[in-house]
Amino acid sequence: MNTTDTSPELPVVRLIPKAEARAIRHGFPWVYANELVTDRRTRNLTPGTIARLEDANRTPMGIVAVTPASKIICRMLDQDPDAVIDQAWFATRLTRALAHRERLYDAPFYRLVHAESDGLPGVIIDRFGDVAVVQPNAAWADVLIATLVAALQDVTGVTTVIMNGTGRARTLEGLEEKTEVLVGDAPAGPIPVPMNGATYMADVMGGQKTGLFFDQRPNHAFAAGLAKDARVLDVFSHVGGFGLAALAGGAKSALSVDGSAPALELAEQGAAAMGASDRFETRKGDAFDVLTALAEESAEFDVVICDPPAFAPTRNAAEAGLRAYERVARLAAPLVADGGYLVLCSCSHAADITKFRNSCSRGIGRAGRRGQIIYTGFAGPDHPQLPHLAESGYLKVVVYRL
Amino acid sequence: MNTTDTSPELPVVRLIPKAEARAIRHGFPWVYANELVTDRRTRNLTPGTIARLEDANRTPMGIVAVTPASKIICRMLDQDPDAVIDQAWFATRLTRALAHRERLYDAPFYRLVHAESDGLPGVIIDRFGDVAVVQPNAAWADVLIATLVAALQDVTGVTTVIMNGTGRARTLEGLEEKTEVLVGDAPAGPIPVPMNGATYMADVMGGQKTGLFFDQRPNHAFAAGLAKDARVLDVFSHVGGFGLAALAGGAKSALSVDGSAPALELAEQGAAAMGASDRFETRKGDAFDVLTALAEESAEFDVVICDPPAFAPTRNAAEAGLRAYERVARLAAPLVADGGYLVLCSCSHAADITKFRNSCSRGIGRAGRRGQIIYTGFAGPDHPQLPHLAESGYLKVVVYRL
Repeated sequence: MNTTDTSPELPVVRLIPKAEARAIRHGFPWVYANELVTDRRTRNLTPGTIARLEDANRTPMGIVAVTPASKIICRMLDQDPDAVIDQAWFATRLTRALAHRERLYDAPFYRLVHAESDGLPGVIIDRFGDVAVVQPNAAWADVLIATLVAALQDVTGVTTVIMNGTGRARTLEGLEEKTEVLVGDAPAGPIPVPMNGATYMADVMGGQKTGLFFDQRPNHAFAAGLAKDARVLDVFSHVGGFGLAALAGGAKSALSVDGSAPALELAEQGAAAMGASDRFETRKGDAFDVLTALAEESAEFDVVICDPPAFAPTRNAAEAGLRAYERVARLAAPLVADGGYLVLCSCSHAADITKFRNSCSRGIGRAGRRGQIIYTGFAGPDHPQLPHLAESGYLKVVVYRL
Repeated sequence: MNTTDTSPELPVVRLIPKAEARAIRHGFPWVYANELVTDRRTRNLTPGTIARLEDANRTPMGIVAVTPASKIICRMLDQDPDAVIDQAWFATRLTRALAHRERLYDAPFYRLVHAESDGLPGVIIDRFGDVAVVQPNAAWADVLIATLVAALQDVTGVTTVIMNGTGRARTLEGLEEKTEVLVGDAPAGPIPVPMNGATYMADVMGGQKTGLFFDQRPNHAFAAGLAKDARVLDVFSHVGGFGLAALAGGAKSALSVDGSAPALELAEQGAAAMGASDRFETRKGDAFDVLTALAEESAEFDVVICDPPAFAPTRNAAEAGLRAYERVARLAAPLVADGGYLVLCSCSHAADITKFRNSCSRGIGRAGRRGQIIYTGFAGPDHPQLPHLAESGYLKVVVYRL
């Protein structure tokens, strides 16, 4: 595999006079298309071109990646205008990211790189032991993937690198969808992932996103702490995130509900690997239908978790999304035993914590129940945020005692 | 000790027509003075009188405690207008509160009752094994303290009950300051409290508030998870909250800084009880002065924690408070090693999470440093919140990696 270095003779792109140069100097990582002089030369740059950014007075501001057709036209790679984006540069960023995760976790299963926050704009890397799954969700990372991967192998020692090129972010960057093994051999089957005492099965080739969501780790742990001897219902369970954590926490029983048969099959494999199959059940179906059916069956649980997909992925969908969260809360609350717990999650950027919490509280109220809020959680510390983008933290979890 | 029951012949208080009856019906726990008909009869009620609340149409809304001179003139005790506030009533509330804490914690050291959220408006009860410390911060609880304490002994089996009657909340209710032993004997010395693997010494007779802050437990745990082999600085340490947790997490060294010699003495006793005195130091002094002095000494730490008192206790103090938080961040950031962590806390109601985070980020920037946010935390789950008051959650913790 060849590695590509950036040339010292970089094209130059320039802010318009009214651009937010100050915010960028203070660490805001993006230049929007309406802040850049987009002459024909800039418009004709290949997506992912490495360029030098100047302010309107021609003062160099740093090295950026340019995608002329994207609303985020430049992503800041380095505020040093003389930085060279080569393998050593990637290695420095990856080493820093790795040191943080190694401090946090005993085992090498985590999000290693969380895009802008880890200094690699648009790049997501999840690690599953010796296997890394890379999502190059910005054009520059697609262009420099070989250099990135060489640094990744060198810094972490992973023996398999898979590129997962799916998802909405790539479409916005004009990138094609493709998933391929870049280094080593594709895993023969799902990879067992230890987390919070549970074992999850991650299908890194065929699963959603990178096969497992590491972001809920602290929230799984909190819910598991409520689960001793409890009857647990995990709705929108994916591969068993909350349900298997609850089993590890001593749940009497866990029922995982999801619309995806392959996800439930992986959850069952996880429960089997934990020796907990006798306490684990799954039900395939639409979550709203199953919640309604369980209420008709007068089912009762001590802990109910609902971790739905993003109902409010965009600002335009925010109102409808918040109504959907309210509906989830309204349908789930009646299933919670008196004094039991309701764990409600949102992974919608457009539903901030206040709006999401209000929707949940309203849904619980409409179900004729009252609740105290005992916990508010976000994504785990392997998903850092830039302070400038902290408002947009996507994952929120609110736990009620009813 | 006598127990006092409320009479079925209760006085009646009535909302004015424009009052927020709907919010109260939906669980808002307070009636403000400008929402109540305050005729001479109501104005002449003894502080803490139990009364029946009616809406403007004379429909009963529940049982309230009335303090005529307080801005919060009524506190809702029970939405059942026929409820009798007797020992059995207290026992029901306490039993429900206890079940939650027993699910959360292995050992009986926690906040047992967190006021409105646990259905006992204005009442705080912290538990230290067989000792309970009660803060009756509303007049009704002062009046009914004997009944409350009888129920508390019965439900929990505690053998010592201390009343801690200090603090601003009592002043607002027109209550006098007094601390006394209501049941059993005063502990001979500080009580050892196990939390997050550390041992804290709680002086329940002479300490701040109830001798120990349980609210930071999950945030102590998070910081301790960063502390292995680390050099840790804990500023505004009180009795060693973060510092001792870091020692339990394997810190190479911890330095606790506080202005209170008695607090530091308790911290040293805690470190000694943990067998960690060789890794523990204290420095008495003004936190700002010590931060400045440490910078002059070119001191460097892998984890720096600042958990100051409320700089913004009221709305009027909000701006000055936010500037003080910024100053803390600016003085602390230079002491953090590259790739190290800065843990910043606020216990100010008036500084919401967004404002507090922005002040911290600004302070870090002014120190010439950059940070990623890796954690946002709140008070632990033994400090539940009513959804209606969730915005006012006082404790916030933001952890940066620099």
